[in-house]
Amino acid sequence: MKNEDLKNLLRDIRNGKKTVEEGFKVLKDLPFDDIGFAKLDTHRSIRCGFPEVIYCPGKTEKQIITIIKKRLSDSCPIVLTKADPGTAAAVKRLKTDAEYFEDARLIVVNKGEVKKQGLVAIVSAGTTDIPVAEEAAIVAELMGAECERIFDVGVAGVHRVLAFTDILGKAKVIVAIAGMDGALPSLLGGLVSCPVIAVPTSVGYGASFGGLSALLTMLNSCAPGVAVVNIDNGFGAGYLAGMINRMKDEE
Amino acid sequence: MKNEDLKNLLRDIRNGKKTVEEGFKVLKDLPFDDIGFAKLDTHRSIRCGFPEVIYCPGKTEKQIITIIKKRLSDSCPIVLTKADPGTAAAVKRLKTDAEYFEDARLIVVNKGEVKKQGLVAIVSAGTTDIPVAEEAAIVAELMGAECERIFDVGVAGVHRVLAFTDILGKAKVIVAIAGMDGALPSLLGGLVSCPVIAVPTSVGYGASFGGLSALLTMLNSCAPGVAVVNIDNGFGAGYLAGMINRMKDEE
Amino acid sequence: MKNEDLKNLLRDIRNGKKTVEEGFKVLKDLPFDDIGFAKLDTHRSIRCGFPEVIYCPGKTEKQIITIIKKRLSDSCPIVLTKADPGTAAAVKRLKTDAEYFEDARLIVVNKGEVKKQGLVAIVSAGTTDIPVAEEAAIVAELMGAECERIFDVGVAGVHRVLAFTDILGKAKVIVAIAGMDGALPSLLGGLVSCPVIAVPTSVGYGASFGGLSALLTMLNSCAPGVAVVNIDNGFGAGYLAGMINRMKDEE
Amino acid sequence: MKNEDLKNLLRDIRNGKKTVEEGFKVLKDLPFDDIGFAKLDTHRSIRCGFPEVIYCPGKTEKQIITIIKKRLSDSCPIVLTKADPGTAAAVKRLKTDAEYFEDARLIVVNKGEVKKQGLVAIVSAGTTDIPVAEEAAIVAELMGAECERIFDVGVAGVHRVLAFTDILGKAKVIVAIAGMDGALPSLLGGLVSCPVIAVPTSVGYGASFGGLSALLTMLNSCAPGVAVVNIDNGFGAGYLAGMINRMKDEE
Amino acid sequence: MKNEDLKNLLRDIRNGKKTVEEGFKVLKDLPFDDIGFAKLDTHRSIRCGFPEVIYCPGKTEKQIITIIKKRLSDSCPIVLTKADPGTAAAVKRLKTDAEYFEDARLIVVNKGEVKKQGLVAIVSAGTTDIPVAEEAAIVAELMGAECERIFDVGVAGVHRVLAFTDILGKAKVIVAIAGMDGALPSLLGGLVSCPVIAVPTSVGYGASFGGLSALLTMLNSCAPGVAVVNIDNGFGAGYLAGMINRMKDEE
Amino acid sequence: MKNEDLKNLLRDIRNGKKTVEEGFKVLKDLPFDDIGFAKLDTHRSIRCGFPEVIYCPGKTEKQIITIIKKRLSDSCPIVLTKADPGTAAAVKRLKTDAEYFEDARLIVVNKGEVKKQGLVAIVSAGTTDIPVAEEAAIVAELMGAECERIFDVGVAGVHRVLAFTDILGKAKVIVAIAGMDGALPSLLGGLVSCPVIAVPTSVGYGASFGGLSALLTMLNSCAPGVAVVNIDNGFGAGYLAGMINRMKDEE
Amino acid sequence: MKNEDLKNLLRDIRNGKKTVEEGFKVLKDLPFDDIGFAKLDTHRSIRCGFPEVIYCPGKTEKQIITIIKKRLSDSCPIVLTKADPGTAAAVKRLKTDAEYFEDARLIVVNKGEVKKQGLVAIVSAGTTDIPVAEEAAIVAELMGAECERIFDVGVAGVHRVLAFTDILGKAKVIVAIAGMDGALPSLLGGLVSCPVIAVPTSVGYGASFGGLSALLTMLNSCAPGVAVVNIDNGFGAGYLAGMINRMKDEE
Amino acid sequence: MKNEDLKNLLRDIRNGKKTVEEGFKVLKDLPFDDIGFAKLDTHRSIRCGFPEVIYCPGKTEKQIITIIKKRLSDSCPIVLTKADPGTAAAVKRLKTDAEYFEDARLIVVNKGEVKKQGLVAIVSAGTTDIPVAEEAAIVAELMGAECERIFDVGVAGVHRVLAFTDILGKAKVIVAIAGMDGALPSLLGGLVSCPVIAVPTSVGYGASFGGLSALLTMLNSCAPGVAVVNIDNGFGAGYLAGMINRMKDEE
Repeated sequence: MKNEDLKNLLRDIRNGKKTVEEGFKVLKDLPFDDIGFAKLDTHRSIRCGFPEVIYCPGKTEKQIITIIKKRLSDSCPIVLTKADPGTAAAVKRLKTDAEYFEDARLIVVNKGEVKKQGLVAIVSAGTTDIPVAEEAAIVAELMGAECERIFDVGVAGVHRVLAFTDILGKAKVIVAIAGMDGALPSLLGGLVSCPVIAVPTSVGYGASFGGLSALLTMLNSCAPGVAVVNIDNGFGAGYLAGMINRMKDEE
Repeated sequence: MKNEDLKNLLRDIRNGKKTVEEGFKVLKDLPFDDIGFAKLDTHRSIRCGFPEVIYCPGKTEKQIITIIKKRLSDSCPIVLTKADPGTAAAVKRLKTDAEYFEDARLIVVNKGEVKKQGLVAIVSAGTTDIPVAEEAAIVAELMGAECERIFDVGVAGVHRVLAFTDILGKAKVIVAIAGMDGALPSLLGGLVSCPVIAVPTSVGYGASFGGLSALLTMLNSCAPGVAVVNIDNGFGAGYLAGMINRMKDEE
Repeated sequence: MKNEDLKNLLRDIRNGKKTVEEGFKVLKDLPFDDIGFAKLDTHRSIRCGFPEVIYCPGKTEKQIITIIKKRLSDSCPIVLTKADPGTAAAVKRLKTDAEYFEDARLIVVNKGEVKKQGLVAIVSAGTTDIPVAEEAAIVAELMGAECERIFDVGVAGVHRVLAFTDILGKAKVIVAIAGMDGALPSLLGGLVSCPVIAVPTSVGYGASFGGLSALLTMLNSCAPGVAVVNIDNGFGAGYLAGMINRMKDEE
Repeated sequence: MKNEDLKNLLRDIRNGKKTVEEGFKVLKDLPFDDIGFAKLDTHRSIRCGFPEVIYCPGKTEKQIITIIKKRLSDSCPIVLTKADPGTAAAVKRLKTDAEYFEDARLIVVNKGEVKKQGLVAIVSAGTTDIPVAEEAAIVAELMGAECERIFDVGVAGVHRVLAFTDILGKAKVIVAIAGMDGALPSLLGGLVSCPVIAVPTSVGYGASFGGLSALLTMLNSCAPGVAVVNIDNGFGAGYLAGMINRMKDEE
Repeated sequence: MKNEDLKNLLRDIRNGKKTVEEGFKVLKDLPFDDIGFAKLDTHRSIRCGFPEVIYCPGKTEKQIITIIKKRLSDSCPIVLTKADPGTAAAVKRLKTDAEYFEDARLIVVNKGEVKKQGLVAIVSAGTTDIPVAEEAAIVAELMGAECERIFDVGVAGVHRVLAFTDILGKAKVIVAIAGMDGALPSLLGGLVSCPVIAVPTSVGYGASFGGLSALLTMLNSCAPGVAVVNIDNGFGAGYLAGMINRMKDEE
Repeated sequence: MKNEDLKNLLRDIRNGKKTVEEGFKVLKDLPFDDIGFAKLDTHRSIRCGFPEVIYCPGKTEKQIITIIKKRLSDSCPIVLTKADPGTAAAVKRLKTDAEYFEDARLIVVNKGEVKKQGLVAIVSAGTTDIPVAEEAAIVAELMGAECERIFDVGVAGVHRVLAFTDILGKAKVIVAIAGMDGALPSLLGGLVSCPVIAVPTSVGYGASFGGLSALLTMLNSCAPGVAVVNIDNGFGAGYLAGMINRMKDEE
Repeated sequence: MKNEDLKNLLRDIRNGKKTVEEGFKVLKDLPFDDIGFAKLDTHRSIRCGFPEVIYCPGKTEKQIITIIKKRLSDSCPIVLTKADPGTAAAVKRLKTDAEYFEDARLIVVNKGEVKKQGLVAIVSAGTTDIPVAEEAAIVAELMGAECERIFDVGVAGVHRVLAFTDILGKAKVIVAIAGMDGALPSLLGGLVSCPVIAVPTSVGYGASFGGLSALLTMLNSCAPGVAVVNIDNGFGAGYLAGMINRMKDEE
Repeated sequence: MKNEDLKNLLRDIRNGKKTVEEGFKVLKDLPFDDIGFAKLDTHRSIRCGFPEVIYCPGKTEKQIITIIKKRLSDSCPIVLTKADPGTAAAVKRLKTDAEYFEDARLIVVNKGEVKKQGLVAIVSAGTTDIPVAEEAAIVAELMGAECERIFDVGVAGVHRVLAFTDILGKAKVIVAIAGMDGALPSLLGGLVSCPVIAVPTSVGYGASFGGLSALLTMLNSCAPGVAVVNIDNGFGAGYLAGMINRMKDEE
């Protein structure tokens, strides 16, 4: 509710267009949908293009289906993250427009048509980082980004990245995904002048400590213009990249 | 060096406009300035508006002064981060255009005039986070952002943040600075639909473990659109915010 | 044994009402029941209303059943925490009054009737925190609290919490359960003037490090009136809330 | 603002008692005082008896004095935590009613008269934990608690604690302060049936890791009814104890 | 090889009783048995009564059987630690004198008769610590100790320990086993004047971090006379207790 | 591409032997093979004898097979690390020259004949460290080293190592593998004057924290000449040892 | 109070030799001396030979002096640990029998004559570990041990330790002190058949993390018979060694 | 003592050239010099060219001077690491051939003439890493390496490293020094085919956690041929590099 809306509401009450009870109800009823075990954020529908997100682990299949049903009426896409094949099957039984991206462990419902504009480069250090990279790419695409996937170009073979400097130079945002030494974002941050969203992955063993190594590397990046999201959080990086990518379009 | 430049160079050699030795020298001489203890990145000057940055701790006064002198000829501003008053005094003795921001521990040389456009909100959870917040604000301003400072609006008094929803809604990017529980970015990320750059600070004691607590909180933020920089890295956040803020202008 | 009891015992010995051996036995025999692998705390029965608690993991089914049988004669309820369905089935075979709360992984034996008085709000940040939240709620109810469950109101959609300020304002104690960023208790602590018992959960991935992130956030809460229990310790929070909630009744 | 207040405001607008502009101003102006570098929470004054708190480290002397001056008109006491002697001297120069508790590193302004009721036991494991214990005790006293100080009764000489079971049994709340092994709260939690607020301290060396050892011990306490605050957070524990202690009085 | 042996060897060479080659071979051949994947320590047989120990995890069944066969000729008992039932079955198929202690996950081969002397108290905080406690007890018994098992006497019900002060006072060594808060050794260390060997266990959840909590507590014990072994290392504690217990016998 | 190559290329362009387009293509095409999900480093083939390496975990069987097929034409051996038996079976179905080392979890394709020269000692502290030790040994052998395996000679039986001082003194490099206390490299580093590559393993339990204990021990080794690789990284150690071992051959 | 004492007391009351009030007072008055900020453990005096210990850091000079004065009447020695020279000077001003061991940072009051019997070897890995080693040695000597100091014999020069096998073989207990890699106790534990008390020190830098490295090494020692005390806790190790050393004398 | 020496000694005894007592003395006296607080390793002199090393922190000035005096007669250089200016002044007062490298905090006594052969590249990521880099360079030079210093070529400006590929390609060993993100060794490991010794530094702030970030990055390097030494351990890296560099010379 913007200030002007509030003033209008008060004017309506003064003018008798709305009763006190009506005014009270509007002011008190905040924009969410209470289904007991979850409070769905209806507010989000006013800025469509941003997908509704459901984090699956720890939710029962029944809870997930109930949430989807509630939201199906909106035109927004619904994204389910870290979803296993069982959940995907259950969602598909809803006979709605749902797609399962197995690599990325993403389910997208109501994907619809998205006009794509602006380039986001999705760059991964290794082949094993691809699931997280795909999660980022699909989400950014849902938000209207053209995505260029550049996979397996880790720092230990720097000529592989350098071969892509052209395309990297054209990107509006770069999502850089790496496990183990996590050095890729530092390298990219020095090559380009656009924002780099760094995603540490849990790929590795021993002293990678489940992604901690890559996370710390990225936080300590010497290149300015780099920011970091949670380990394996491809969704978060794709979302933020999508958000930045559409900036010019809003003017 | 862009592809087109490379082709032109080769054509010049073919046409005899350049000798082989000249071509070799151009291709080999990469764009930096070697002063022994440092390699200055002259490449950066082709994308002016982005300040040159010197991280002070661990550098001798002599090294810092030498670097500045080398770069004075450029029109770019030079930013010295985490600078103590002694360094500031030494820089001022250079009789150049230098300003010391004591709170932010920043020295800016060659600040010049910057046309400001686009709003960046700099939001801090507490009064004690102000030094890091100021570091972010000044850097973003150097890069052409209009900065709105909203300080001391931590989550434990949520009505304080809510009073600023209007201005937050107008920002193109938000920099959210917090120590201790580090909860501010999660709250902001849910209130706005622009990117939120989160900066954990080392403010706190006991189980804040030098900012680790706030860092983890921010990485685990449930709000999408949030990315994190290093603890106390106001510079990095301001730089990234400035980068995103100027995006529309580049078209 | 209170001081007065001790004096009475000594008087009885002096008066010959008790022999020295009898006195010795009373003074030496402390109030527990030794069944070899466990020492049951019979002392607890004198302050009934507080449930007897058995932490299940690591105990054999046989040990658990033996402990329950020993305690069945007491009128106190017995709570078994972190109990799996197999244990629940074994307990039910005892043909006693036993209920299994699957979500909360709690078994309650001898639940009986509890007069409820005083309001405890059980507030969870996400749907996936519900198992821990239910564990807290059921334990608090066993101790006589009226529990209001407010689930899925995390900080990233702050208007969802604000819609419940009325009911939160009426609570005598609040139990706040959150994983990931763990920011909920800081928010609640600033909204109310009653104690907030914070429960970090292991919900999350990556840099949540099994609940460490939420734990540190809560310990560093900027709102006064917040204290923290172990990760996933819904039982402990519900117990403490129940204890505080009944305070006025004891006068 | 309670619901009823909101309805009344709307009624006043409807009835013409208040103009739309007046109504807008009330609804928009949330209860805090903006002095630039800080937002003072005036809301707190409606529940007086709870002190206003200023955490000193990282604030300049000038900032602290400005905040105090703003709040002097309230009748509430003001507590400054972790204050060094220099700050204390500066506050005393204000010629207001200010007292400095050097052990506890607390400054209390506007202490006034507090009616004391209900017993809070402040129990420390060692002599070196006294500064944190005193911080807790003074804050609880400000909130109306009678405090019994029982110092240096660590678990390694258990008969020392047992000698105080009488007085512990009378307490409404216990604050248990310990560094090193941090075992005291577990012991106390088993001896009493009132809430135990545990405060780990940074007392110790080596594998105490600045209080981490005691913190983990307390979080893992096997006794129910124990909750934990941040390392060295005597203020937080005293505040929560004071809050619980006055519960019966509020009815 | 003692100094005297060395002198004798050299004398034998001088006297021509041994050739130079023989002398070289004796000096070079150190006392172990090389079976390729393992070097068995035959040296140990000269101080019999101390069991030979095989740590099972990570060894193949074949390796374990080969090692046992090599050592069967010695009169020393052989202890296999952390052994699963499959290994136990394989060892039993050897048709030798082997016993499997399932709780303790120990296999003892060649147990034989041991004269018991001196009292070792094996004290556990909880029922779930019993497997580690049994591991300690059986090993100490193999080394000639009389073991008194006192289980489930954690600090949270201190009267349970106090009921055993008589027997604790008679012990030559105490092994104190505890998970979670790990506070038991601190308590025991203050009650007795004999050495306390503390064993942290991985019993617990959340912030127990696999036994780290109990480990740190025990290392920070305020009671002198306490030393600590690895998490869940019942074997090590029992061995050390057995070693100390037999001290007087060596005179 | 060496400097001389570059000059030659430019001369060819100048002389018209190569067109500008041809020159551009050479300069732009860096030496790798792009198969979409992976960028194969063909550069490596110019320094044959160093095996091509594929880290298996997280790669699909299909990806692994595709990579192998692409590289089969090279004469270099291909090493697949941390490979499970399923992958080994799939590779063998390719009907190429492939061998699976089950202990070491290594697959070697195109092993071929390697002339062995120079001694590398592979020393392990325990029998359970053998899988990592074998991984190191096989890789070093592939690179032309003669490997001496000395297993189960941990510090706790120091005479076992001392019996091998002769052979250790002849080694050009030593690879020292140890879990638990990780003390072996410190001991070896003091016995020899050749480089010691230390490999911590995840062998152990409790406070070994998955190899962290051994890792820290090795990093803090008091013996000079010791460097460390990742936990369980037998491959890395064997590779580096092979690299150092062949040094003299390069002259 | 032993059982027999308790029975005698009860008999005295029965017989009228003691009044009820007298009996109550004895039973209630537990054996400590309450001086407000400290509870002195008078119980300890009944087992003299064990020094009274005061940990200095965090105690004011005034508190320390008060405690010493209270205890001067006992014949027991008083040990002040981690004492700085200022404290030592203050204690000496008491004009009592006090000695300051500067290396060990120990003050010993009432040292008196101790009959020495039994050998304790104090073995340090480096010269920089000597302060902790001296702390252990002096305390063990106070408890009647003959101490052999063997310093600077770390694992990286194993022949240095081996030169002392004779004397190590004669020791009843060994205290092994090491920082950095902390490997010494593993080595010693394999050489001798007596208990080894391991003391990690904070000597080192970088990944020694204040002694964590040595601590973990020692906890993971592969040699049985090793137990560990806190980092830098020379006092604790010396005390425990003294305790074990005097065992045979107690028979 | 080599095998042949031992045989000769035995032959001498047999032949009567040496008495039994003489033989015993030789065999027992191991090669070190016992000066009480330190055991000097005289063994080292037989492989001269390797400097004798003294780690200064924690040693008294007197201890350091005593050690130097003892060793002055050897022709080996003596290196004192992490030495402060005070120690340097004291050493210079000895009027021996001593040089203090202030940046590197190294004192070298008896430096003498060293024939240099073989190239070691010392590569640092930043200017602030120079002290550690210099420590490595000077030590490698002492051991006969020609050192090329390439400073301030971090990954964030990758063209700076690439400009040095020629010289990097000629090095026999590379020492790579980096703090913060520690990404440099991964990059270098992929560019060259010689060993890379990686040195993490404590340069950085916030989530660099004293060098932990760089350490983990380096351990997780995806490039083979990289091994790591302790944080800030320039000495260790220089020593190992020197050792490897002289390998070919030994043939």
